[in-house]
Amino acid sequence: MSEIIIDFERRLRCAVEEAIFCASKSPAQIEKIISMGEQQQTALLFTRLEEDKYSLLSPRSQHQLDYCAISQTAVLGSNEKPAVDSNSTIAIVSGGSSDTAVCHEVLRTLNYHDVGANLYEDVGVSALWRLTNILDELNQAKVIIAVAGMEAALPTVLSGLISKPIIAVPTSVGYGVSANGQLALNACLGSCAAGLVTVNIDNGFGAACAAIKMVNSFSS
Amino acid sequence: MSEIIIDFERRLRCAVEEAIFCASKSPAQIEKIISMGEQQQTALLFTRLEEDKYSLLSPRSQHQLDYCAISQTAVLGSNEKPAVDSNSTIAIVSGGSSDTAVCHEVLRTLNYHDVGANLYEDVGVSALWRLTNILDELNQAKVIIAVAGMEAALPTVLSGLISKPIIAVPTSVGYGVSANGQLALNACLGSCAAGLVTVNIDNGFGAACAAIKMVNSFSS
Amino acid sequence: MSEIIIDFERRLRCAVEEAIFCASKSPAQIEKIISMGEQQQTALLFTRLEEDKYSLLSPRSQHQLDYCAISQTAVLGSNEKPAVDSNSTIAIVSGGSSDTAVCHEVLRTLNYHDVGANLYEDVGVSALWRLTNILDELNQAKVIIAVAGMEAALPTVLSGLISKPIIAVPTSVGYGVSANGQLALNACLGSCAAGLVTVNIDNGFGAACAAIKMVNSFSS
Amino acid sequence: MSEIIIDFERRLRCAVEEAIFCASKSPAQIEKIISMGEQQQTALLFTRLEEDKYSLLSPRSQHQLDYCAISQTAVLGSNEKPAVDSNSTIAIVSGGSSDTAVCHEVLRTLNYHDVGANLYEDVGVSALWRLTNILDELNQAKVIIAVAGMEAALPTVLSGLISKPIIAVPTSVGYGVSANGQLALNACLGSCAAGLVTVNIDNGFGAACAAIKMVNSFSS
Amino acid sequence: MSEIIIDFERRLRCAVEEAIFCASKSPAQIEKIISMGEQQQTALLFTRLEEDKYSLLSPRSQHQLDYCAISQTAVLGSNEKPAVDSNSTIAIVSGGSSDTAVCHEVLRTLNYHDVGANLYEDVGVSALWRLTNILDELNQAKVIIAVAGMEAALPTVLSGLISKPIIAVPTSVGYGVSANGQLALNACLGSCAAGLVTVNIDNGFGAACAAIKMVNSFSS
Amino acid sequence: MSEIIIDFERRLRCAVEEAIFCASKSPAQIEKIISMGEQQQTALLFTRLEEDKYSLLSPRSQHQLDYCAISQTAVLGSNEKPAVDSNSTIAIVSGGSSDTAVCHEVLRTLNYHDVGANLYEDVGVSALWRLTNILDELNQAKVIIAVAGMEAALPTVLSGLISKPIIAVPTSVGYGVSANGQLALNACLGSCAAGLVTVNIDNGFGAACAAIKMVNSFSS
Amino acid sequence: MSEIIIDFERRLRCAVEEAIFCASKSPAQIEKIISMGEQQQTALLFTRLEEDKYSLLSPRSQHQLDYCAISQTAVLGSNEKPAVDSNSTIAIVSGGSSDTAVCHEVLRTLNYHDVGANLYEDVGVSALWRLTNILDELNQAKVIIAVAGMEAALPTVLSGLISKPIIAVPTSVGYGVSANGQLALNACLGSCAAGLVTVNIDNGFGAACAAIKMVNSFSS
Amino acid sequence: MSEIIIDFERRLRCAVEEAIFCASKSPAQIEKIISMGEQQQTALLFTRLEEDKYSLLSPRSQHQLDYCAISQTAVLGSNEKPAVDSNSTIAIVSGGSSDTAVCHEVLRTLNYHDVGANLYEDVGVSALWRLTNILDELNQAKVIIAVAGMEAALPTVLSGLISKPIIAVPTSVGYGVSANGQLALNACLGSCAAGLVTVNIDNGFGAACAAIKMVNSFSS
Repeated sequence: MSEIIIDFERRLRCAVEEAIFCASKSPAQIEKIISMGEQQQTALLFTRLEEDKYSLLSPRSQHQLDYCAISQTAVLGSNEKPAVDSNSTIAIVSGGSSDTAVCHEVLRTLNYHDVGANLYEDVGVSALWRLTNILDELNQAKVIIAVAGMEAALPTVLSGLISKPIIAVPTSVGYGVSANGQLALNACLGSCAAGLVTVNIDNGFGAACAAIKMVNSFSS
Repeated sequence: MSEIIIDFERRLRCAVEEAIFCASKSPAQIEKIISMGEQQQTALLFTRLEEDKYSLLSPRSQHQLDYCAISQTAVLGSNEKPAVDSNSTIAIVSGGSSDTAVCHEVLRTLNYHDVGANLYEDVGVSALWRLTNILDELNQAKVIIAVAGMEAALPTVLSGLISKPIIAVPTSVGYGVSANGQLALNACLGSCAAGLVTVNIDNGFGAACAAIKMVNSFSS
Repeated sequence: MSEIIIDFERRLRCAVEEAIFCASKSPAQIEKIISMGEQQQTALLFTRLEEDKYSLLSPRSQHQLDYCAISQTAVLGSNEKPAVDSNSTIAIVSGGSSDTAVCHEVLRTLNYHDVGANLYEDVGVSALWRLTNILDELNQAKVIIAVAGMEAALPTVLSGLISKPIIAVPTSVGYGVSANGQLALNACLGSCAAGLVTVNIDNGFGAACAAIKMVNSFSS
Repeated sequence: MSEIIIDFERRLRCAVEEAIFCASKSPAQIEKIISMGEQQQTALLFTRLEEDKYSLLSPRSQHQLDYCAISQTAVLGSNEKPAVDSNSTIAIVSGGSSDTAVCHEVLRTLNYHDVGANLYEDVGVSALWRLTNILDELNQAKVIIAVAGMEAALPTVLSGLISKPIIAVPTSVGYGVSANGQLALNACLGSCAAGLVTVNIDNGFGAACAAIKMVNSFSS
Repeated sequence: MSEIIIDFERRLRCAVEEAIFCASKSPAQIEKIISMGEQQQTALLFTRLEEDKYSLLSPRSQHQLDYCAISQTAVLGSNEKPAVDSNSTIAIVSGGSSDTAVCHEVLRTLNYHDVGANLYEDVGVSALWRLTNILDELNQAKVIIAVAGMEAALPTVLSGLISKPIIAVPTSVGYGVSANGQLALNACLGSCAAGLVTVNIDNGFGAACAAIKMVNSFSS
Repeated sequence: MSEIIIDFERRLRCAVEEAIFCASKSPAQIEKIISMGEQQQTALLFTRLEEDKYSLLSPRSQHQLDYCAISQTAVLGSNEKPAVDSNSTIAIVSGGSSDTAVCHEVLRTLNYHDVGANLYEDVGVSALWRLTNILDELNQAKVIIAVAGMEAALPTVLSGLISKPIIAVPTSVGYGVSANGQLALNACLGSCAAGLVTVNIDNGFGAACAAIKMVNSFSS
Repeated sequence: MSEIIIDFERRLRCAVEEAIFCASKSPAQIEKIISMGEQQQTALLFTRLEEDKYSLLSPRSQHQLDYCAISQTAVLGSNEKPAVDSNSTIAIVSGGSSDTAVCHEVLRTLNYHDVGANLYEDVGVSALWRLTNILDELNQAKVIIAVAGMEAALPTVLSGLISKPIIAVPTSVGYGVSANGQLALNACLGSCAAGLVTVNIDNGFGAACAAIKMVNSFSS
Repeated sequence: MSEIIIDFERRLRCAVEEAIFCASKSPAQIEKIISMGEQQQTALLFTRLEEDKYSLLSPRSQHQLDYCAISQTAVLGSNEKPAVDSNSTIAIVSGGSSDTAVCHEVLRTLNYHDVGANLYEDVGVSALWRLTNILDELNQAKVIIAVAGMEAALPTVLSGLISKPIIAVPTSVGYGVSANGQLALNACLGSCAAGLVTVNIDNGFGAACAAIKMVNSFSS
């Protein structure tokens, strides 16, 4: 079987840890990585672990993992804190309830790195009052992660209303021209709003890592 | 030279007149069409007539046309009314001053069909106060034509704020992922706003025709 | 689980109601929205609810919904009128019988808003006599919704024959270059017919909302 | 300079002759090919020879060529017959006068092979009466070449009306989604009309060669 | 359920008959069309009828159809002749054995119209001797249908070797850059070979209809 | 002429100021904006102002602007500080000397907001020693802006070597598959490096604004 | 059933043997090819043979094949040598453990032609130390095959560090902008590294054949 | 002005030298690089140096460069050998005379590294006899570089006829679907020919470098 070399010291070097991207890995490969993590007595974060694949793992492996079906993430050997923290310097906002899987990937990744976050879901621009209602709270944050699919106008509109750095996470929600998230991605990148930064489609993990790097860099 | 058959009775059949799309026509072809229009004593609207091509027409032809360099349109044999009409049932709004060429193609097409319009330029969503300032006025219109480039969030946001039918005209303003208007087009089509309808990139002529058809259909 | 904020007053503000787009929602999220609708004693329209997902809802939820497998829509708490109304001011025409799912999404959305429509299916341009046979009837309508896949020549040809506003709905019917509806979409947008307006691929819901907004705007 | 090997016996082998595609050739290369043609005392057809490039050839070369600016073709050493032949078994129809350059490339290529053709320009589907007016004449042809840009509905509609083989030539006329001819190409390929065959965008030369091959194959 | 209008007289008007494209139709719709065919006592050709969908039809319907799983076609009410006819004026050649589904769609469509064909499979250009071996036989045909996937060099190479009209059918065989057939399609359209004509990806039905139209046009 | 509404208070609301995007504006529009800026006695930043368009402005306007041809930016009414500041908390690194225009757009935007930056050009991954030579210096920064074209491996490699937040700016440098910057953009978005954030192609202005927002948010 | 012509003498002519590409072949076709191979007493390599399709073969056929589920390859009638050979002149390196299927297709193809290889998996650039650790060993090889997905920076970085010819194999590992391997492919093709050559996405078979051709050409 | 760091020791490390890619560099940057080269008394190769840009260099710089307008390359400080060497182990073949610019970029790059090559232009597959005429000579080479545009069938056909490693260079020759070389690129990558390797569109420089690396690796 294929050899696997885990970069156990990435946190020291890069501020964030290596995550195990499971979409292209076989259950046998994932089992092997769990074993390696156990031997090293290290924590590990698994992303894109679909429920079907998770159920193909051995009962022992399943038992060792803290699995979250909504975000398709699993954590090995970590004492996670509560997901939502109303005192956090990081806020997550989303356009619609269809974006919830990505929101929770953000949250799980933050939590895995011992960082909390506020979560404001379903505040998209088709009903602006939902967004203006929470502007004051959002202004308390140091970094905002804005999750949106379809035409993804939310990050643009938000950028025009507050001064905080905003990391846009386009999602694959939609159909026709917006299917697969390419429209949402381009809408974030091509936004008239100055200073918006963007990650890959549905990349909640990446957005969380970026936020952690910002917090770490400026608080050190 | 190629033969040309003008559909002089399209207005009767289709509510709007044939326009002469000049982008792929030679100056010689345009001259010939002007002659045919004169012989028929009919008015004609020319679109996408770039200033360079216009300047290659004979002085006689140039003199017969009412040419507008901003919108790259020309009119033969028509007594146009003033462009902006504050009592009109049609309102044009645009995201930025870069969209002005398209706004004026809308306006010229409406005027050519003896229809006026209100014009609200540079009210994009990066500064929402510019848009909310004019909401009451916009609610007086029967149809709104929303012109926007880049991420084109304007039609979506507007759709969430008022109940009037909105025709979105995506423009080719932008660069990188938004260049050529494909992003703006998809943002209008893939919008979460229900009931938004869209025309081709930079197609101010088409949006104006659609508005005219609506007005005609419901007032007859 | 993710939070959900339903915009129960959208009809007042935007003329049409919020629909629950089910393609990216889990059965659990849909159950929760049904509960919220019941508590508010409001009607709700669910779109893109595939039969497989519908069958995963609780029997109680299934029983409360008026589900239509052809259009993949469901309605909560509404007394729908008969689908087809030969006196309606709205006409739906389609190119082929493969477009029937989209036609019925249009019809269900109109009915949900208490609007009827005439329906003329399978009148595509490969047999023009099917279309010319119904021209007189179509001229009685105030708005026409033209549904077509593949090369989608129907909306263009129709635009050359009658003067009513036409909303084109490109469908994902076809294969090879026409697969997924991108060809049909572009054929509507890039049409030589002046005044055609277009919605997203398979977006029957959006076309219906646009028609409702037109009717409301001009009858008020 | 680069070496050039002309396939002087292609007509014997393939029914049609090699054409010199000039778009990517330097004036020096074209001069050299003219010399080779003269030495062989053979006729040669040059396509995509833009007027600017033609004007950079030596006066002697210019004089030897029969140049046509509309179709951007040139012929060396051939006694061309009149372009339009009302008794021909080949008919060319086009959607609009903007397609005239392509129509004339078809015509010049046919003429170069000593074949005539009827030409019916500007009969697009936005005014169907222009097309139905000539149906009887078109039914006299053995092969029809249908040239159309934008949404290119003409070949589809024509296919539904007559029984002759139709070669569709999509053109690059249009803007936005139809720019560069990709929409027209896909509309021909993805047509619901059975039996339509297609060539590359603006490939009048290829369509003419296909028609010649058909005539030759069936008359031998 | 949706209404269906079958164009039973298309053969008279267009030389080829309407086929029932089953990819986007439900089993219920297909059953209904079979009933209509029976009532009219007419033959019908069904294409893109996947084996799974065929097996969902009623036993009675299945029994009435002559179903071919390789080509995913079915015929109602026709006495088909043997598939391969070594005296035919039509030859089918294919690049590889993976193209066999498309080859048989060509053959079944021809047979349905009472036309035979020769079939030469697996003669792609990676082993040119397989192609040169059959050149003399191919030269006996009046029309050649060349079926090829991946980089689809076969139609181009064939065009350089013989003088007959060639209809290229690109197939969706391949992976990576060639997946879905877009590469094969473009390779046929963008070929340096003069006079090659092309149909949609995997469109064996269309290629057969084009060949029938040619034969009919020139033999009448 | 078109109306223009400048958002003079954006800095208060959004931390960064509005820039005047000149690519789609006429010289007349730019002149008008300069006048509005003068009347308001405010500073203004102009981006994408090509040298040719700048030279079409009136001598008076040219004189008022501090124009930089490398970055195609101009500043009205501002006392800019020196471009490079070796004590800055922001570092700019670029892959090659072809990226210099974008690097200077970053620098000019930072300077316009009274922020300095270190600049490390031409340190791409084809010669890794150029990058490892400056790692210690880069680790002194709080934010890194990484500018790269072609396959844009620089931001990915850099992310694996240091812990600071990195804003990637893909550039349009390259040809063939990398032309227009789409490859560089996707390489940044699809990077295996966790926490990389990205802006539009060539969007030096946006990257600078994002860095300013980070600095402001964490230092307040 | 379709006819199959196997090119049993390709190795003589082309240095490498024909492989049976199974993705578009039915189990029946594969059975037939196995029979032909047995009759000719020749070895055969089958690629893209998914486990599900393999399991549909007759037990007898399954028994005759040496099947490898990781690489989805099967070998008929060959005595394969051990997969990894530490003395080989060919080295395979991969970016991550998700690329293992492609690595093993390379290895199996080499082995089938009696060539061994070294294999270095999971040495991607996000942890450069994994790559620099093996540079000395890689310098012992004559040809390097570099397998990488996502942003595929590995082949570029490797090209800057050693002088050996490198064949890049982009893989379909990733999601969003990198899904399907198009990003990885373009990153290899558009690399700033001089002399990198590339094969199709996931084409381990092709890369192995290229390496074999190089070894054969230079050792003869 | 931007800083430039030339990697003067790349030949030692990577077998080939750094080339100066001029497409995105200003004349001032190129002048500066020439000065740096002179100071280091090193030779330098400049690629993509268009004639217009070359003519903007100072007379002194122009004089120092050995400029070739056909290939748009320039060499500083090198005694180039004659371009074509009939005893070379490297052969260049091209499909048509339009590919000559790329062929000469290959040749110039080889010559710059003191390597000769045979050149066989205009031997494309539309006239196979041109290719079969030279097969014996091609079999004398160790590496073949095959340059082709449009549908680029040449590398595929060649791969089926000889056993040498082939590096395909797709060119941007063509129009419509083949414009910009994307079709030629994909045709090489998606070829059914086993072992073909490919470089970026028009990348003659890269193909030459790959050939040099092969020769160096196997002769050391």
